[in-house]
Parts: sequence; structure tokens; C-alpha cells
Amino acid sequence: MRSYQDLSDIARKYPIILSVDTMGGDLGPAAVVNGCANSAKKNPRLGFVFHGPEATLKRLIERRKALIGRCVIRDAADVVSMDDKPSQVVRHAKGTSMYSAIESVRNGEAAGAVSCGNTGALMALSTIRLRKLPGVNRPAIAILWPSRSPHGFNVMLDVGADIRADAEDLLRFALMGMSYARNGFDIPEPRVGLLNVGTEEHKGRTELKEAYELIGARADEAKFDFVGFVEGSDIPGDLADVIVTDGFTGNVAIKTGEGTATLIGDLLREAFKFSPLSRLASLLALTSLRRLRKRIDPRRVNGGVFLGLTGTVVKSHGAADATGVSAAVKLAAQLAEKNFTDKLAARIATAHGEAPKEAS
Amino acid sequence: MRSYQDLSDIARKYPIILSVDTMGGDLGPAAVVNGCANSAKKNPRLGFVFHGPEATLKRLIERRKALIGRCVIRDAADVVSMDDKPSQVVRHAKGTSMYSAIESVRNGEAAGAVSCGNTGALMALSTIRLRKLPGVNRPAIAILWPSRSPHGFNVMLDVGADIRADAEDLLRFALMGMSYARNGFDIPEPRVGLLNVGTEEHKGRTELKEAYELIGARADEAKFDFVGFVEGSDIPGDLADVIVTDGFTGNVAIKTGEGTATLIGDLLREAFKFSPLSRLASLLALTSLRRLRKRIDPRRVNGGVFLGLTGTVVKSHGAADATGVSAAVKLAAQLAEKNFTDKLAARIATAHGEAPKEAS
Repeated sequence: MRSYQDLSDIARKYPIILSVDTMGGDLGPAAVVNGCANSAKKNPRLGFVFHGPEATLKRLIERRKALIGRCVIRDAADVVSMDDKPSQVVRHAKGTSMYSAIESVRNGEAAGAVSCGNTGALMALSTIRLRKLPGVNRPAIAILWPSRSPHGFNVMLDVGADIRADAEDLLRFALMGMSYARNGFDIPEPRVGLLNVGTEEHKGRTELKEAYELIGARADEAKFDFVGFVEGSDIPGDLADVIVTDGFTGNVAIKTGEGTATLIGDLLREAFKFSPLSRLASLLALTSLRRLRKRIDPRRVNGGVFLGLTGTVVKSHGAADATGVSAAVKLAAQLAEKNFTDKLAARIATAHGEAPKEAS
Repeated sequence: MRSYQDLSDIARKYPIILSVDTMGGDLGPAAVVNGCANSAKKNPRLGFVFHGPEATLKRLIERRKALIGRCVIRDAADVVSMDDKPSQVVRHAKGTSMYSAIESVRNGEAAGAVSCGNTGALMALSTIRLRKLPGVNRPAIAILWPSRSPHGFNVMLDVGADIRADAEDLLRFALMGMSYARNGFDIPEPRVGLLNVGTEEHKGRTELKEAYELIGARADEAKFDFVGFVEGSDIPGDLADVIVTDGFTGNVAIKTGEGTATLIGDLLREAFKFSPLSRLASLLALTSLRRLRKRIDPRRVNGGVFLGLTGTVVKSHGAADATGVSAAVKLAAQLAEKNFTDKLAARIATAHGEAPKEAS
């Protein structure tokens, strides 16, 4: 299983080692390796452990100068496909690139893992192999949503790790989300909102009223700004940096938003194709549209993060190209630099009445 | 309280009488009266009962030839505002234009009501005054969402009448939604989908699995096409004409979708303002953009409908202008022409094992 170069040698020169699952994405290992190469060029502290079919990876890596001497390969012939059911994967995962990628985080040789593969399987494997942080009942998936906030997006969690969340889970989501916003995106005092159907305190489900009290009580000590209940329209808004909800609601919300955005994009394209005049207009408007695209491009804010585990796992979009993979790698690197997992563990521990240590 | 003309005289010439709450919308009674006048010009069968301050309404109506001799006024000095809490409104509603508008449906003089006012208050008052149909536990609000479907939108319910729904409620929503799609929009065999986080049958909450069975078992007899579980991305998609969910999830989903669409629109406008060249482009692109706007313009598919009550109530958007009000009036008229409430009552009754009569 060992590759042609020793990882400890690499780690001395490149202190942030990331574990990368090169398989399972729609565009195959080339997009993944290229994305990592782009990141390597920008960040001189990065090294990689690549997981996948050795021969293929060797060929791909040899083509990218930025990666030479900065990575090792862990041969893994099997792939978790998008159609595999998480419960099945868990039983037969050994030998897959996904399992191997998580293993590198588990044994401490990498500071975090990145994968474009099957979300459900990745969550199930990560939970089993990395374990939940003490005090965490349900881990959560946090994503970034384009918004009117100064940094251009908001953090939302959970978007589908679990379909349920009680008041205690929602409190944990709030703490994990704000710690993620602080460490991942340098927002010193994140504004945290709890998703509901109305902003009046009397509305909504029982667990939400309870969570409202629990989260409010922790705001001062954990140094975040609790803005109370927010609505669906605030997910792309500028009222909160972190939106807290259960995985069912969060998943439906982001898929509705994504679907609507894609529909508008397609209709816009159609509209511009309609007449010679509008085709000319679209040519002239190209730079404007590109600017807009860049602003809301999902590839630039690519990467759902699994929160509540003993290691950092970044889930890149299945359809991610090199740009998307590179964005996910950048996020994993930033979290590694900040020792995010340790800080999160400390933060969650304080939720249990223990003294805050290095909590953030 | 009677106006200068007798309603029965009007009803002989204009067989579809609609009750209209002229107050409570953001643009005031002028937009509402103008919207009704536009509808009157297009549909020669329409007559109106207007509810609001008599003097103001008289002035507004006298300016619109299409309305002369086709409407009466019920004087109502009080207004339900957007900030009023539904529970409070219910106790002090007498004398408001909203209460009066519902009363016209209750006493049978109008075939349906249209209001731009406070949704929660309108739902609470409608439920109390019009009562629920036999067999209905929770009424639902159904809205139209721009989609890739052949008719350009999908029906979704519930979007906020209640925050809860059990499996039986969801079955009722499916029957009400498909009957609405059939009668309101002439879709003979509506495709019905149940909103979930994944399309695999094993996923999701218990009540959803139960509802899946219940709805599937009714598809043949009620002549709709049950497409099974759908995801958030299918709300603007072409997989189902009717999307069934609980009011909490539905409300969050549409508000996320609306917020994302508005954000994209604003960013697009900004992008086009950026340089002289892009400003020129936007001028050239104007017709294309107008065409797109028309396609996804919420005013054209304006009108949430309250389903499950003994009368038809159409809730127009609070910010609706004359075009928006006219769209809501058109919808209420179509439902009245089809005797929608009677058909819906028959359809729900069959859900209780009774023989289908005029069910649709």
C-alpha cells in the first residue's frame, strides 16, 4: 500500500497534509488531481495523500509539476458509487478510495479529508470511523449559500446528515456552525439565526421554542450574536451568518433554492437566444453575466463540511471540476491551519458545563 | 350597510359574483379596484361585492367604466393590518373589510372571496366563519411555483396554514391539491409528488412513509398519477404538477426559493449597471429580460388558495398591484365556474369510504 515516497519527509516541508479521495466524483480523478495541483500552486504549505487506483493517479500526478514531491498515493481499487446505499457501503467499504481517505484522518497522517463522492456513504463512513465528538448526538452537514451578507454567503446546517433534530441538537448545531464561521471564514462574532416559519416568538414547533431559549442563553459566553428566529427568505439574506435547522428542512430548502436558481439561469439563456438582437445583447452583456456568475458560482463556495466528528471531512459537490475541488481543498486547509477540530471539541465540551479551554 | 344597487339584479346579468376585500394590501384599495376592473373587462360573467370604506370605494369605482352596474359596496371602516396577530384579529374582526368579505361567501351571495391582507388572519377568520369541510382536519394553503412543467408552474401545498401534518392530513392535501390542479388549471390527470429528502423509499420520516402508502392506494380511483417521493429540486421541476408537504417545510421552501430568486434578480441588475457597455447591453436585452420576467413573474401566478373550507378564498400577495389582483380574481372566477368547492367536498367525502358523487 505504501507509495514511492515517505509521507513524513513530505510533511516536514509541507506542514498541512490533506487526504483526498480521488474517486466517486462525476468527472473522475483527473478533475480532482488537477484541483489539488491548483491549490498546491497557491498554498506552499500543502501536501497530499491521494487515494485511488495507483497507476492512474501516478500518470495524472506526473503531469502536474506542482504535485511532484508533495504527495503520496494510497492504492485503492474500489469505488463507492453515487447509487450505493449508505447502509450497504458501510459493510463493504474496505478497499474503496473513500474508506482509505477517511483512514488517513483517523490515523493522524492527514489533517482533513476531501471527497466528491456519495454524501450519505461519506457521512456514514466518517461517523463510524472518525466517531462523534464527546457531547455530540447528531453530526451535521454545513453548506455555504450565496447571500447578501458582506462575505457573500451564509452558513446553513444541518442540510441532510439526519432528518431529525431536537432542541439540544439545534443548540449544538448553533455552536458548531458559529465556530465553523469563525474559524473557516474569519467572522469574529457570527450572527446566528434559528429557522422558523415566522419571526414571532409564539410561532413554530415546540423544539424550536426550546432551542430558542437554549441558544439565547449561550450567546454571551460563546461570543456570538443570536438574532433569534429567521425565515426561509433570510437564508440568502443579510440577517444571519449562520442558519440553524434540522436536516429535513435544510435539505428541502437548499434543493428548492438550487432548483429555482437553475431554472432562472436556463430561462435567462433561452431568453437571450430568442432573436438576433437579443443574441447580440447577450454578447455585449457577457462580462456582466460572468461577473454575476462568479458571485453566485457554486464552485467558488464548494464544500459541505461534516461537523461534530473527531476529524475534518469536506464533501465537495459530485459534479465539481478542478475549480470546485480546489475550493474544497482551500476550505479544508483553512480549517486545518486553525486547528478547527480541537477548538470545536472544546466548544462542545463547554456546552456540557466544563470549563472552556481553547474553545472557539 | 346596503349599497345603491341590489346584488340580485346584478347577479342575473353577471352570474359569477366574487367578494373582494379592498383593504389590507400594501398598495391600498385603488390597486384592488383597478385589478377587478381589468378582470371585468376580460370576463363578461363577473360581478363584485366590494368590502371597505364606502366613500373611497365609490370614488374609485366611478372612475372605472367596466365596474359600473356590476358591483355593490359593503361599507367596512376597519382594516386588518399586516402586523395584527391572527389570534387577536379573530376576537375583534367584526367591522373589518376582511370579515365582511368572508361573510359574503358564508351567506352565499358570492361564489368566492379575494383578499390581499394578512395571511394568518385571513386563514383564521376563514376557518372560523366558513368552517372546515367534513373530513378535513387541517386546511391548507396552496400556491403556484414557476416550474419546467408544460403549464409553467406547479401547485404546492401546504405552505403555511399549519406547521404540522400527519399521514392522513398529507393524503387529504394530495386529494385537495390534485382536485385544485384539475379544476383550477385544467390538468386532467395531475402528477402528485410527496416531498421528502430523498427519492429512495426507505428515507424520510415515519409519517411520510405512511402517507406514501395512503396516497398511492388512492391514485387509480381518484384518477391522478402518484409519482412518489420528490425532492426540493422538483418544486421548480417537471416531475410533478402537485407537491405535497407539511406547512412548516413548505413555507421554508417557498421563502428560500423566493429569496434566492430575488437575490439573483438584484445581482443581475447590478451586473448590468457596472459599465457603459453593459448598460447598453441591458438596453438591447430588454425584450429578452421582459420575456423572462413575464414567465416567472409572481404577479401572473398570483394567489394562494385556502383548501379544505366550505368556500373558496384566494389570498393575493400583499404587495400585489392591479395585475396581481386581476390574476387572483381570474383564479377565483375559474374555481367558481367549476363549482370547485362542491367537487372538493365530494372528493374528500370519498376519502372516508363514501361513494364518489360529483367528485373531481
